[in-house]
Amino acid sequence: MTSPGSIDDFLEQLASAAPTPGGGSAAAIMGAMGAALVSMVCSVTIGKKGQEQAAAEMLAVRADSEILRARLTAMVDEDIAAFESLMAAYKLPKAGDDDQVRRSAAIQAALRRATEVPLECARACAAVIALAARATAQGYRGVISDAGSGVVAAHAALRSAALNVYINAPALKDTEFARRSVAEIEALAASSAADSEAVYSFVRRRVEE
Amino acid sequence: MTSPGSIDDFLEQLASAAPTPGGGSAAAIMGAMGAALVSMVCSVTIGKKGQEQAAAEMLAVRADSEILRARLTAMVDEDIAAFESLMAAYKLPKAGDDDQVRRSAAIQAALRRATEVPLECARACAAVIALAARATAQGYRGVISDAGSGVVAAHAALRSAALNVYINAPALKDTEFARRSVAEIEALAASSAADSEAVYSFVRRRVEE
Repeated sequence: MTSPGSIDDFLEQLASAAPTPGGGSAAAIMGAMGAALVSMVCSVTIGKKGQEQAAAEMLAVRADSEILRARLTAMVDEDIAAFESLMAAYKLPKAGDDDQVRRSAAIQAALRRATEVPLECARACAAVIALAARATAQGYRGVISDAGSGVVAAHAALRSAALNVYINAPALKDTEFARRSVAEIEALAASSAADSEAVYSFVRRRVEE
Repeated sequence: MTSPGSIDDFLEQLASAAPTPGGGSAAAIMGAMGAALVSMVCSVTIGKKGQEQAAAEMLAVRADSEILRARLTAMVDEDIAAFESLMAAYKLPKAGDDDQVRRSAAIQAALRRATEVPLECARACAAVIALAARATAQGYRGVISDAGSGVVAAHAALRSAALNVYINAPALKDTEFARRSVAEIEALAASSAADSEAVYSFVRRRVEE
């Protein structure tokens, strides 16, 4: 598929038996929604009467969240390309010795990419959560719940991406890269859980005050 | 806005200072993605060689997940309509006594709707998580990670919707309805956390075997 098209088409293709898009692409869109919700808190706060003291910080946060939104949106296609390369590699001929060497090298290269793409998605989502913390600290109270939605979206995106690291890393022959990748995604998942929970709790307290 | 249009347009409007779409609409789309990912696991498993014993269960699960996907997709607009009604009610004239009575009644009706819509979104997301558990129990191992992505999406959607219940319920004059709504969303959030975690852990163990 070419993406991102309409939301209905994306959901239709996601629900189908077609191998792409799958959880990795859904992760990228959820991460992009998280970034967009952080941008929304900044966009509303900037220029709001009585919120002048927050404007510089909100402009800085939004500049970064908009870069992350663009990056995560692009990852929808990168995830699809990585998955399709991997499927294509597995389908390469394996009759002769040369074929087998070529096929194995192609599979390893594709597995590496299919591990790197979700890792990069997870790093971007962790950055979104850090920005959400800043947006809620100084953002206009009337919209900070959107940053609360943003952190749960980004955390879900990170955990969804993590599954693709868990799937692909064990098949890598470069075991040192595999080990480092799993360690990094575990660390990101743990810190993201704590950081997103802190933002969500802060938002909940503020909206119920 | 009219929704759901293209993913890019939705993200652009989400990031803007426009009051809609916000976290409630993002929640509906995340929930719909969760339902679609459950459908995908079923769609792949149905008709897969060697998975014949699971076909009847997968058809039953997919019938329900597709209904939930349609329901959650429709909630994008319902969330926008509920929020816009609430804003319109707050803008009604309040000069005379009659105006005040009318305005107060309109605000209360809109607040009730703005509490019911996210509650219904949360109920649908909890149902998606229950279906994901069934899809992973019998689904084809090669795609069950998509159900793992589905549960984190549905759980994030439920928690995002919950924020709108926490925001709107305290302003309701029908305190019994408000109390029941908060109690229900708390119960849904707690069971969804446990149920989605069980599915995610199961998926992780299976993909790393």
